[in-house]
Amino acid sequence: MALIVQKYGGTSVANLDRFRNVAQRVIETRENGNDLVVVVSAMAGETDRLLTLATEATPEPDERELDVLLATGEQASSALLAIVLKSQGYPVKSYLGHQIKISTDSAHGKARITSVDAERIFAELREGRIVVVAGFQGEDEAGNITTLGRGGSDTTAVAIAAALKADLCEIYTDVDGVFTTNPNICEHAAKIKRISYEEMLEMASLGAKVLQTRSVEFAKKYGVTIHVRSSFHAEEGTIVSEEDVEMERVLVAGVTYDVNQARIEIARVPDHPGIASQFFDAISKGNILVDMIIQTTSLEEGCANMAFTISKGDFPKALEIARSLAKELGAKEVIAEDEVAKVSMVGVGMRGHSGVASKMFSTLAQEGINIKMISTSEIKISCIIDAKYTELAVRSLHDAFELGKGNG
Amino acid sequence: MALIVQKYGGTSVANLDRFRNVAQRVIETRENGNDLVVVVSAMAGETDRLLTLATEATPEPDERELDVLLATGEQASSALLAIVLKSQGYPVKSYLGHQIKISTDSAHGKARITSVDAERIFAELREGRIVVVAGFQGEDEAGNITTLGRGGSDTTAVAIAAALKADLCEIYTDVDGVFTTNPNICEHAAKIKRISYEEMLEMASLGAKVLQTRSVEFAKKYGVTIHVRSSFHAEEGTIVSEEDVEMERVLVAGVTYDVNQARIEIARVPDHPGIASQFFDAISKGNILVDMIIQTTSLEEGCANMAFTISKGDFPKALEIARSLAKELGAKEVIAEDEVAKVSMVGVGMRGHSGVASKMFSTLAQEGINIKMISTSEIKISCIIDAKYTELAVRSLHDAFELGKGNG
Repeated sequence: MALIVQKYGGTSVANLDRFRNVAQRVIETRENGNDLVVVVSAMAGETDRLLTLATEATPEPDERELDVLLATGEQASSALLAIVLKSQGYPVKSYLGHQIKISTDSAHGKARITSVDAERIFAELREGRIVVVAGFQGEDEAGNITTLGRGGSDTTAVAIAAALKADLCEIYTDVDGVFTTNPNICEHAAKIKRISYEEMLEMASLGAKVLQTRSVEFAKKYGVTIHVRSSFHAEEGTIVSEEDVEMERVLVAGVTYDVNQARIEIARVPDHPGIASQFFDAISKGNILVDMIIQTTSLEEGCANMAFTISKGDFPKALEIARSLAKELGAKEVIAEDEVAKVSMVGVGMRGHSGVASKMFSTLAQEGINIKMISTSEIKISCIIDAKYTELAVRSLHDAFELGKGNG
Repeated sequence: MALIVQKYGGTSVANLDRFRNVAQRVIETRENGNDLVVVVSAMAGETDRLLTLATEATPEPDERELDVLLATGEQASSALLAIVLKSQGYPVKSYLGHQIKISTDSAHGKARITSVDAERIFAELREGRIVVVAGFQGEDEAGNITTLGRGGSDTTAVAIAAALKADLCEIYTDVDGVFTTNPNICEHAAKIKRISYEEMLEMASLGAKVLQTRSVEFAKKYGVTIHVRSSFHAEEGTIVSEEDVEMERVLVAGVTYDVNQARIEIARVPDHPGIASQFFDAISKGNILVDMIIQTTSLEEGCANMAFTISKGDFPKALEIARSLAKELGAKEVIAEDEVAKVSMVGVGMRGHSGVASKMFSTLAQEGINIKMISTSEIKISCIIDAKYTELAVRSLHDAFELGKGNG
C-alpha cells in the first residue's frame, strides 16, 4: 500500500467520457490498496475560453480578478470528477486551493506555492476518502485567489506530494512520456525511461511541453519522484527522479531545440571596461530576457563584438535598444537575425566526458550547418544555427549519438 | 451620499456588452457619491449548462460537489464585472462567499445564510473600493461551499444589505417590476409602485419570478427596503418595504394564479376522529407538499369529504396514496383532477374590509366560472377553478377591482 498523488491534465478531462476514464483509473489505483490524492486541470479549452472572455473585456485585465476568473476552470473539473467517483460509490471530497491552504506568494498569474496543509488532507485520507484537488490555484496571505501559471497543476501535484511525503507523483497527460527528441521531426525518437531533474530542466522545449518547469524544480528540491505517463493507455512513461548510476552511464539523454530565437550582434565596439554592463542594463530595463551572451575581441584592434540571443517576441524592442546604444558607443555595425534556432544536447553523463561537444560540432559540420554561437553548461551544449537547418540538425545529432529506437 | 447594494441577475450579465452596461450603471451610482456593493448572478444559461454537465455525469449528483460546480458561475461573473470596472479606472475588488464569510447552514442546494462579515466589506468601502460579490454562494461551518437555490443571489444581496444596514437594496432584473397581474394575459396589468413584504410573499407565482421568496422573508425580518427594477432602462420599478398607510388604502394589490395545481377529493369517508391525520401522515411521508386542505361533512350521514390540492408533479404519487387509503378507510369515491388552477387576490387593505371575498365570488359567477375550493388568509383569498378559465378569471377580477392602468 502506497500514498500516490495523481494529476490529470486538460485533455484527460476534456469531456464526460474522459472524466469517466480518469475515474476508472483512480478506482483501479484505489482498489490496489493505495491512498490517493487526485489533482485535476481545467477541461481542455476552458482556460483559453475564460482568458478570451477577459481579454475581450479589456486587453490587460486586472491580474487579481483574472485569477478569480481562471480558477473556476479547475474548480469545475474537481467537482465533476468527485461527482463521477461518488456516483460509482466511492467516498470522495473535492478541495479548492484555499480549503487545503495551498498558500502562495501574491504574484498573480505566476504565484509560487509556499506551503500546503498536509494535515487536512491526511484527515480525509484517514476517513478513507479519495481527495480530489483543484489544480493551478492557491491563496495568498491576504486571502486572495492566486494561480500558478500555465501547467501550474503539475506544480500543485508535486507540492502536495512533497507535503504528504507521497511515495509517487503520477502526472497523466496526452503524451507517452519524455522523448529523446521531438518524434514529429525524428522518427527514431524514443521514450526515455528515466531522467534526472537536472536533465529534465535543461530539456527546455521538449520537457516544458510535458511538465511545468517549476514543478520539476519543486520535485528536485523535495526529492519527489515523478512518473509522467499517458492517460490513454496503461504503458509506463518516464520517471523523473534523482540522478542515479544508470543515468550517468548514458552520455546524452536527448536533443532539444527552440526555433523561437533571435540573435543580435553589435560588432566592432570600441572596447573599454563597462560597455557590457551598460548594454545589458538598457536591455533588462526593457524587460527583455537575454539567453546566451558572448563577448569577443574583434579582429579590428581595440574593438569588441557583443552577441546575444533573445526570444522572437522581444526582437523588435531589443533591436531598437541595440541600434540606439550602438550609435552611442560608436559601434561599427549591428547584425540582427530572427531566423535562428537553438539546438541542444542534454545529459548528466556529459559531466565526465569531453567528447560530446566535439562530436556535436563535427556532426553539424558534416551536414554543412554553420554554428553561429555556442554555449555550454555542465550537462548541456547549445548551438545557434540557421533556423532552416533545425530538423536536419536534430535528426543528425540524434542519429550520431545513437539515441533512437533500435540504437539504445 | 448613501450605502447601496445592487444585484444584477443573469440576463443583466448575459454577455460582455451587458457587463459593460452594468458597469456603466454602477459607475453612475458611484459618481453620484454613493458607496456601493454589487452582487452578481451567473451569466444567463451558465447555471443550466453546469447543471446539465453534472446530471449527464449521473442523474443524482452529490449535493456537496454540485454546489462546488455551480458556484463557479457566479465566481466568473464577479471577476468579469471587476475586470470591466477596473479597466475603466475604478478601484474595485471581487469577493467570493467564503472570503466575506457568507456563513450558511449545510443544506446544500438550498442553504440559508446565518451571517455575513460586514467588517470586511466596510474595510474595502473605507478604502474607497467598489465591492463586487459573487451571489448565490456561501460557506458552511466546516468550510464547504454551499449554494442558496435558484434566485439565491437576491438573498445574498438582501443579506449583505441587512448586515451593512444599507440604505437601499436594488435588484436589477429583466422585468420592469412587480405587476398587478401577468401582463401577458391581461393587457391592463400595471406596475405596482409600492408593495409590502407580506403582499410580495403572497403574490407567489407573480412575485417569485421577480424575487426569490426567501430574499423577501429576509428583507422583512431585517427591514431591508428593496427596489426591484429593470437593468435595461432607468425607469423606477417596484419598492418592496414595510406596510405603510398608502398600501392599506389599496384594497387589492394584485391578482395571481398558478396553473401547476391538482386536486384530489376523497368522498364519503366514514367519519371518525383521526382520519384526517391518518391521511396526511401518509401524504407527508411521501414527501408531498399539500397546499389547500378542506374537510367537510358529507350529505350522506356519518360521512366526511376530504379535499386537498398539490402541485401537478406530485399528482400521480398522491393519487396512488389517496386510492389505497380510501380503500382502507372505506371511502366511497376518489375524485381526482389535474386540470385545475388557483386564482388569488392579494392585498393588505383586505384586513379591514370584508367585501373582497364576496365581490370575487360574484365576479367569477358572472363569468360562469365554478369555484371548486376556497381558502383565505388575512391578506389573500384563493379559489380553485377549472384550469381552462384561468385567463378569463384573472382578467375579470383585475377589471372588477380596477387594478389596471387608467383605473388606478
